[in-house]
Amino acid sequence: MLPRMNQRARDLGIVIGAMEPGPANAITDVAGVRVGHTTLIEGDSIRTGVTVVVPHDGHPGKDPLFAGCHRINGNGDLTGLEWVRELGMLTSPVAITNTLSVGVVRDALATSGHSEHLPVVGETYDGGLNDIEGQHVTAGNALAALEVARSAPERHPVDEGNVGGGTGMICHEFKGGIGTSSRVVDDTAGGFTVGVLVQANHGRRQRFRVNGIPVGERLGAEVVPLPEDIDESGGSGSIIILVAADAPLLPHQCNRLALRAGFGVARTGGVGEHSSGDLVLAFATGNRGLVAGESALEGARELSTRMLSDAYINPLYDAVIDATEEAIVNAVLAAETMTGRGARVHALDAEVLLGALGR
Amino acid sequence: MLPRMNQRARDLGIVIGAMEPGPANAITDVAGVRVGHTTLIEGDSIRTGVTVVVPHDGHPGKDPLFAGCHRINGNGDLTGLEWVRELGMLTSPVAITNTLSVGVVRDALATSGHSEHLPVVGETYDGGLNDIEGQHVTAGNALAALEVARSAPERHPVDEGNVGGGTGMICHEFKGGIGTSSRVVDDTAGGFTVGVLVQANHGRRQRFRVNGIPVGERLGAEVVPLPEDIDESGGSGSIIILVAADAPLLPHQCNRLALRAGFGVARTGGVGEHSSGDLVLAFATGNRGLVAGESALEGARELSTRMLSDAYINPLYDAVIDATEEAIVNAVLAAETMTGRGARVHALDAEVLLGALGR
Amino acid sequence: MLPRMNQRARDLGIVIGAMEPGPANAITDVAGVRVGHTTLIEGDSIRTGVTVVVPHDGHPGKDPLFAGCHRINGNGDLTGLEWVRELGMLTSPVAITNTLSVGVVRDALATSGHSEHLPVVGETYDGGLNDIEGQHVTAGNALAALEVARSAPERHPVDEGNVGGGTGMICHEFKGGIGTSSRVVDDTAGGFTVGVLVQANHGRRQRFRVNGIPVGERLGAEVVPLPEDIDESGGSGSIIILVAADAPLLPHQCNRLALRAGFGVARTGGVGEHSSGDLVLAFATGNRGLVAGESALEGARELSTRMLSDAYINPLYDAVIDATEEAIVNAVLAAETMTGRGARVHALDAEVLLGALGR
Amino acid sequence: MLPRMNQRARDLGIVIGAMEPGPANAITDVAGVRVGHTTLIEGDSIRTGVTVVVPHDGHPGKDPLFAGCHRINGNGDLTGLEWVRELGMLTSPVAITNTLSVGVVRDALATSGHSEHLPVVGETYDGGLNDIEGQHVTAGNALAALEVARSAPERHPVDEGNVGGGTGMICHEFKGGIGTSSRVVDDTAGGFTVGVLVQANHGRRQRFRVNGIPVGERLGAEVVPLPEDIDESGGSGSIIILVAADAPLLPHQCNRLALRAGFGVARTGGVGEHSSGDLVLAFATGNRGLVAGESALEGARELSTRMLSDAYINPLYDAVIDATEEAIVNAVLAAETMTGRGARVHALDAEVLLGALGR
Repeated sequence: MLPRMNQRARDLGIVIGAMEPGPANAITDVAGVRVGHTTLIEGDSIRTGVTVVVPHDGHPGKDPLFAGCHRINGNGDLTGLEWVRELGMLTSPVAITNTLSVGVVRDALATSGHSEHLPVVGETYDGGLNDIEGQHVTAGNALAALEVARSAPERHPVDEGNVGGGTGMICHEFKGGIGTSSRVVDDTAGGFTVGVLVQANHGRRQRFRVNGIPVGERLGAEVVPLPEDIDESGGSGSIIILVAADAPLLPHQCNRLALRAGFGVARTGGVGEHSSGDLVLAFATGNRGLVAGESALEGARELSTRMLSDAYINPLYDAVIDATEEAIVNAVLAAETMTGRGARVHALDAEVLLGALGR
Repeated sequence: MLPRMNQRARDLGIVIGAMEPGPANAITDVAGVRVGHTTLIEGDSIRTGVTVVVPHDGHPGKDPLFAGCHRINGNGDLTGLEWVRELGMLTSPVAITNTLSVGVVRDALATSGHSEHLPVVGETYDGGLNDIEGQHVTAGNALAALEVARSAPERHPVDEGNVGGGTGMICHEFKGGIGTSSRVVDDTAGGFTVGVLVQANHGRRQRFRVNGIPVGERLGAEVVPLPEDIDESGGSGSIIILVAADAPLLPHQCNRLALRAGFGVARTGGVGEHSSGDLVLAFATGNRGLVAGESALEGARELSTRMLSDAYINPLYDAVIDATEEAIVNAVLAAETMTGRGARVHALDAEVLLGALGR
Repeated sequence: MLPRMNQRARDLGIVIGAMEPGPANAITDVAGVRVGHTTLIEGDSIRTGVTVVVPHDGHPGKDPLFAGCHRINGNGDLTGLEWVRELGMLTSPVAITNTLSVGVVRDALATSGHSEHLPVVGETYDGGLNDIEGQHVTAGNALAALEVARSAPERHPVDEGNVGGGTGMICHEFKGGIGTSSRVVDDTAGGFTVGVLVQANHGRRQRFRVNGIPVGERLGAEVVPLPEDIDESGGSGSIIILVAADAPLLPHQCNRLALRAGFGVARTGGVGEHSSGDLVLAFATGNRGLVAGESALEGARELSTRMLSDAYINPLYDAVIDATEEAIVNAVLAAETMTGRGARVHALDAEVLLGALGR
Repeated sequence: MLPRMNQRARDLGIVIGAMEPGPANAITDVAGVRVGHTTLIEGDSIRTGVTVVVPHDGHPGKDPLFAGCHRINGNGDLTGLEWVRELGMLTSPVAITNTLSVGVVRDALATSGHSEHLPVVGETYDGGLNDIEGQHVTAGNALAALEVARSAPERHPVDEGNVGGGTGMICHEFKGGIGTSSRVVDDTAGGFTVGVLVQANHGRRQRFRVNGIPVGERLGAEVVPLPEDIDESGGSGSIIILVAADAPLLPHQCNRLALRAGFGVARTGGVGEHSSGDLVLAFATGNRGLVAGESALEGARELSTRMLSDAYINPLYDAVIDATEEAIVNAVLAAETMTGRGARVHALDAEVLLGALGR
């Protein structure tokens, strides 16, 4: 299940928006952000995993970052959001896994020594290809992904597709999974980097668009079969989106970035379908030295913070939208056809996509 | 300023999405909904007006409708939203005008005899073409638009472009204004009608897309001049979106529809720019006989209501997205080049658009 | 209708909470904040007005302050909240008036030259004592109150009771109106000042409490008559609460302060009744030099801001709760019995209250 | 650790508000609602547990209830809230445990066969008395509490104090834990029952009030010692509040009830301190036969629902406030002095409280 780096959208000549990506074209282009996957593919029916994103190389509970969130459609969970909303900060690594393993991953992070007690852990449902009720993800799997992330080099490339939490996911009725992309805004706008990582398990074939082109309409079941022998009873859908930026954003500005991730979903044909849990977390590394605080008159009374003037925020919005769109396409392109639990979900091969794009 | 009905998107062969529109392809396809405009074009510098939408032929305060809302970007106002959020109902006609005339229109509706005391009145900024500081919209103008709406026939066509509140607006750096569209969902999904009306004053040329095609990139200033001699100091941007549906939606379901209008904005290239006031109101006519209630143990204790099963809500989401997209394009197509206050904003002519679409 | 400064709660020995108030025991104890009233009492039926609070002596649009808000119960309006929520800033003076005059006051402020275009204007309903449908508040009245506020000295005392927007209001079925109070937190917690101003028009007699004592239960209609000959048909209720603090709070921290104002309402026996429009705006003067920003890459890209460490925020919460409670009691104590529109609402005299408190 | 039913507030003559409680004066007075505790008290340092509330005797995923929520202060977690907010329904049993065991309980409920996949599980922090890092709560403990709840008789009394999730909790610096109360509104208002259950781990001694009386000021450390030898480093605070009502409330009305639970916290002296995770879930049993729905056009398209006219909602607000206040006092009164992990937290004995109340 090697990552097919040669099949990323941009490598195929699919250029979304006018901005340039960072060197890795990944969320890791935001300095300090690193990603680790634990991928579980065993026997006929274990097709799952966990992905952990660390926001920097310290302890996010002791060195929190301003953060915000957005709910596109709430048929899903992302633990810890009440604390993000209240505090305006991220105080933990972020993990994404399957729907029935959120708890074990959450408790593992909370006691990992590298997180505050209310970690952010999201999920999408992989019960079509994975024996999700078996709850095969363990605390050890989560900690292993955390350790991979923590020990990864700066600005490392990120495996996409059938990896980590994305292993068993389905996107626009093609095989989906993890995808990532980044954008760098012009120097005149600050030269900031915005990175996006998605666990893409959402969307209908018919509405799928790549850079505005309705490829889903052109790629019917006769071209690429729809998911086969999927038990729909467990539900379907969902995309978790993580947005990182190195700009000095305050919490309410992070909320604003998070909302724009939904626009990237919209542009690729997502609708936030009823059974989809489409949740966004956005954090900014531009302010450091923050504290989450206890109810005691301790420590510095005032923190020196910086705020991006809102006159410069639009380029970040563009970046979030474009990077989200490309991350979704990357997730689909990287994922390979998978069988599991008696079901089969087909990849969207690069050549097929290029054909649909009229290339 | 006759409406150019022959230049609506669909008449040009621009077909957005798979669903069919209603007979008028307008918000008025939702039974009971009617629209009235007062357009003020006088001298060199008065280019403004007010548009009123009535949700049915009764008194919305005495016969309220379930409703919800969504903030895409809040650099704007839509009065009455606290009451909509709390009560889950719309209790007034809805008006849209310019930024500095919201108050006069609001007070006029509140005492019109056809509204509860907390009406919903929105705005976008027309100070580029209009002497907005002159506050030329009067209470009488608002009441006139209300009367036009109240006396209009069922399912009437709606004037678009440089009319009513949309008179002096600018959209994606073309002349903008009022636009509308509708969709009818399949009989298997309930056969419901969704209508959208926008006052479109938002967006950058570069990002404008029609049905996914990046026409904005193709229509540079050398093809259609950018707005000329606009005084930017007053601000720019904003789109107000009204969504109506005849389905039996509860308030939280109306909120969900409202969010999807943002997806239509996204697909046409809107970003919810910082200086844009992009607010959505959604209401549903499927439940009648509601009461807003006072703090007294009076009247029926229980109301019999109906709820659309969420299993049937996705087609309505699709409808909102597609109709919003088409309403924005219709606003641009209907609007004619306008000069005012020494500035000039150019229309996007149908032939030019078709050319950019490669037709 | 002179303010009865000798009948403020604290002067009567009613001490709410452990903190000390500022010198004026008013919202004006927050440096820069000043208040102006225009009171309209004419003939038999004009009993209304407008109160304006300026957050500092500059132009709030050009020198905005971080701000937040909270909805306790939304049967009311406070214009401009979408912009407060989005931007996290207050960009205007704040005005409070009656329900049917919000618009005229809003449009007046928006074009006053001392406000950005989306001012914050709230209301409560005075139709019991005032010919509210007559819309007697004019733009001139609003501008006059603004001018009074702008020209007031620093830390001036504030008239309470039947003044300004509070003129015709009813609180816990006694005569209500404007009330204010402040608290200073300990030097160890930063020595910050928190000020609260209310326009109190809410509450039932039965539930009214002063410093926890159920005086409402003890002050039945036989002791102090209930409002007489009030036409209830127009609605009832509502309290608008303005909270100011000189601490360096970020926007999300202002939201948190705003919520605690509701706790002060709760402690005095308010419930956020269904027909009540109970809305809170909180702003902080601790950060200056902010900009609201337009969509242009202009001006400084980064702003230097300060943030109160959350470890020091609890004393501010206590201050908001206690000052809100005292402001409500002050509003009731200051208000004198009023007749208007054929109705009569009785004051709660100091001696009567003291008796009910068992003094 | 027998429940001391004779020391409930009402049995001591402490009567909060004018309404009568139901027969059990507990959340179980709402027909169908039942409660189960698993209490873990072992050795020197295990002082924890889990409490499960089932909303009715069916499967909440297949027979969901309308629900809403409210965040007073978000330093805590209550999983599943995104789905509650989106769907407007509760689709699971509700569990409360300690901060580091939320995950295991959540995953256990999700696969219990008696819940949908996104259960609501809350927490408060018991690390002062309990070896919380040891994560002693198991999936089996959670399922046992669920089974106790499911097999309990209708309208059963509820153990309070040091039981279930409340075992190791601290409230206003007395021993706290689980508390419950209920209210029945007048027949003229519908005769509905409102029940509240709290896991109370919040508050400062100084601000504690019982029925408005500042008993906390009167009960200094010299009367009842403050918690001894508590390691504060882990954090402190939090109250989880569950509100049940048998009225036919729609989701937005459930949100409104949830907010009023905060008013009960306020009246007993809570502030929503910074380090407190104060979250409320409210659900209504008055509508049955709902469906959560999948993204498929299946099942009935319309559901017949009922809505309480808002004219009748105020008595429910009063009931929520009063029952929350009484539930908090009941939690404190029922809890016995506990030692654990080397720390000691003292009970507030009934006689001591009565003394402070001046009885």
